[in-house]
Amino acid sequence: MTEEIATKIVLAARPKGKPTEADFRIERTPIPQPGTHELLLRTRYLSLDPYMRGRMDDRKSYATPLQIGDVMTGESVAEVVISHVPALAPGDLVLAETGWQTHYLSDGKALRKLDHRATPVTTALGVLGMPGFTAYSGLRFIGQPKPGETVVVAAASGPVGSLVGQLAKLSGARAIGIAGGADKCKYVKGVLGFDEAVNHKSASFSEELALACPSGIDVYFENVGGIIWQAVLPLLNKFARVPVCGLIAQYNGVSNDDRNNTVAATMREVLTRSLTLRGFLNSEFLKYYPDFLTEVGDALRAGKIKYREDVVDGIENAPEAFMGMLEGRNHGKLIIKVS
Amino acid sequence: MTEEIATKIVLAARPKGKPTEADFRIERTPIPQPGTHELLLRTRYLSLDPYMRGRMDDRKSYATPLQIGDVMTGESVAEVVISHVPALAPGDLVLAETGWQTHYLSDGKALRKLDHRATPVTTALGVLGMPGFTAYSGLRFIGQPKPGETVVVAAASGPVGSLVGQLAKLSGARAIGIAGGADKCKYVKGVLGFDEAVNHKSASFSEELALACPSGIDVYFENVGGIIWQAVLPLLNKFARVPVCGLIAQYNGVSNDDRNNTVAATMREVLTRSLTLRGFLNSEFLKYYPDFLTEVGDALRAGKIKYREDVVDGIENAPEAFMGMLEGRNHGKLIIKVS
Repeated sequence: MTEEIATKIVLAARPKGKPTEADFRIERTPIPQPGTHELLLRTRYLSLDPYMRGRMDDRKSYATPLQIGDVMTGESVAEVVISHVPALAPGDLVLAETGWQTHYLSDGKALRKLDHRATPVTTALGVLGMPGFTAYSGLRFIGQPKPGETVVVAAASGPVGSLVGQLAKLSGARAIGIAGGADKCKYVKGVLGFDEAVNHKSASFSEELALACPSGIDVYFENVGGIIWQAVLPLLNKFARVPVCGLIAQYNGVSNDDRNNTVAATMREVLTRSLTLRGFLNSEFLKYYPDFLTEVGDALRAGKIKYREDVVDGIENAPEAFMGMLEGRNHGKLIIKVS
Repeated sequence: MTEEIATKIVLAARPKGKPTEADFRIERTPIPQPGTHELLLRTRYLSLDPYMRGRMDDRKSYATPLQIGDVMTGESVAEVVISHVPALAPGDLVLAETGWQTHYLSDGKALRKLDHRATPVTTALGVLGMPGFTAYSGLRFIGQPKPGETVVVAAASGPVGSLVGQLAKLSGARAIGIAGGADKCKYVKGVLGFDEAVNHKSASFSEELALACPSGIDVYFENVGGIIWQAVLPLLNKFARVPVCGLIAQYNGVSNDDRNNTVAATMREVLTRSLTLRGFLNSEFLKYYPDFLTEVGDALRAGKIKYREDVVDGIENAPEAFMGMLEGRNHGKLIIKVS
């Protein structure tokens, strides 16, 4: 099984929009030899994931971009071939950040040893790996579906989406999957057990999604963006939660020109900087009103809080004052002295 | 002081963009007489607030829209003139939803009696009223500034913004205010004690904001939207929180055509439905990885979780498989069998 040479796939050029063959290059080198305290790994299974598209751009994201000529990033199930590290022996299987290449030298520190007797090793790249953990953590810590609520996820037949829906079902929520094509929809509903699956390639997709969510959407697990987000937005219920873990529909699409003026740009920042955007009405927190009156009232009386009022005389002047306020012409709290 | 007639200002027409005089109408009627168990209130101070603009549109928001001919919505400090309710006597001052009118009949239930000895009664409409509580609750429960963090708020000289910044300072954060014009900026920094004030009417506003926030922005209290949001977005730090309580810059501006494809539309939904958009990377939750492996691993082995893999043979085929995945051509977790 040992190859004579190592093969690696490097970034040859930065994609403009969709990547093409020309953006990748295959390189062949001699198999590297491990130094003292090093291991030689042979990649068995390489995981391909949408986030890799982001690394190909020369743009600050949550990770450092690849440089031209770098081996493409990627996580693998790899086998130890030569070990100068006590904890691992030839034949052991590990999870490793090998990148897109057949051989990899490691100091053993960032490796997780896999137990292939418990579950098939490839699950460590999917349902029991980073994609699965993304589904789990986003749903558990941000989405927090309650029994009876409606959870929607796109790319529902994919590794993240398929687990999101199944975990939603296990927590007593309704799960609606969005997928591209009748086959994927059939799998999502028939095999994964989602309550409904909606085909985003359908001409009446928005209407079908609305029909599948008669009580609106309480959790939308966002991993696609673009037109899916446009269809979901009007269906979101009050207090809906939107964990944003990916925007695959936008990865090939947002140019730098768009960055400052599109919803895609906002969503991209939400994603890459783990932002929290949270709409609210103060009525939601009304039980804390007495605390507010005490704290801010005391601070006000102690001179620690200043305020200013802009008092306009006469109710007849309310419309003009109101119009001015919308353009920022007042200074301080606008109040009409009526009588 | 008692008027001979009552004056009210009603919605005469729905504004197209900015409201104009023609959208309001003054009506005069006899003073209404309270029935059994009713009170007659006379409005003393009427509060004008940006949210009222939203009520003028015929569009579902967090509150029912006004109908043509309805009295404009509004909260007031009012005086009891006639009382058939035991708890309140003539001369008492109350906080009431009178709307834009001089007289109002109430059953006494939704009134809050004000103590004018503690603080000036008008503060109940501003710093110690709903605007103040909006600042308090959004900052306390969503923004959660920590000592040393940077908090930015727009409309910083207004009733919400001025308290946001001062509360941020009291909690040990840096406060940066955005305001329109040199006078307001001088007030924000000189009187309210913000660390910096930035004039959004300046031609170099974005650059000045960036200079005022050398460590980026940890909390942006959003009450303006539009171009201010565009300037703030690139400065937000990882894990920044954006409580969204208003979008005054957009109230006159978003047409129905824009609703489905602008960032303004997304922000509007965040606001009106109290949505939470939360970007994340699973690495943020890494300490729960063992829980995940146990829970999902057990469910998988028990057959409660299904998964599917799409295995492509040969590392040379990784680029093509990757390009296909970005277009949704695979079905299940995409894995390259390397060796």
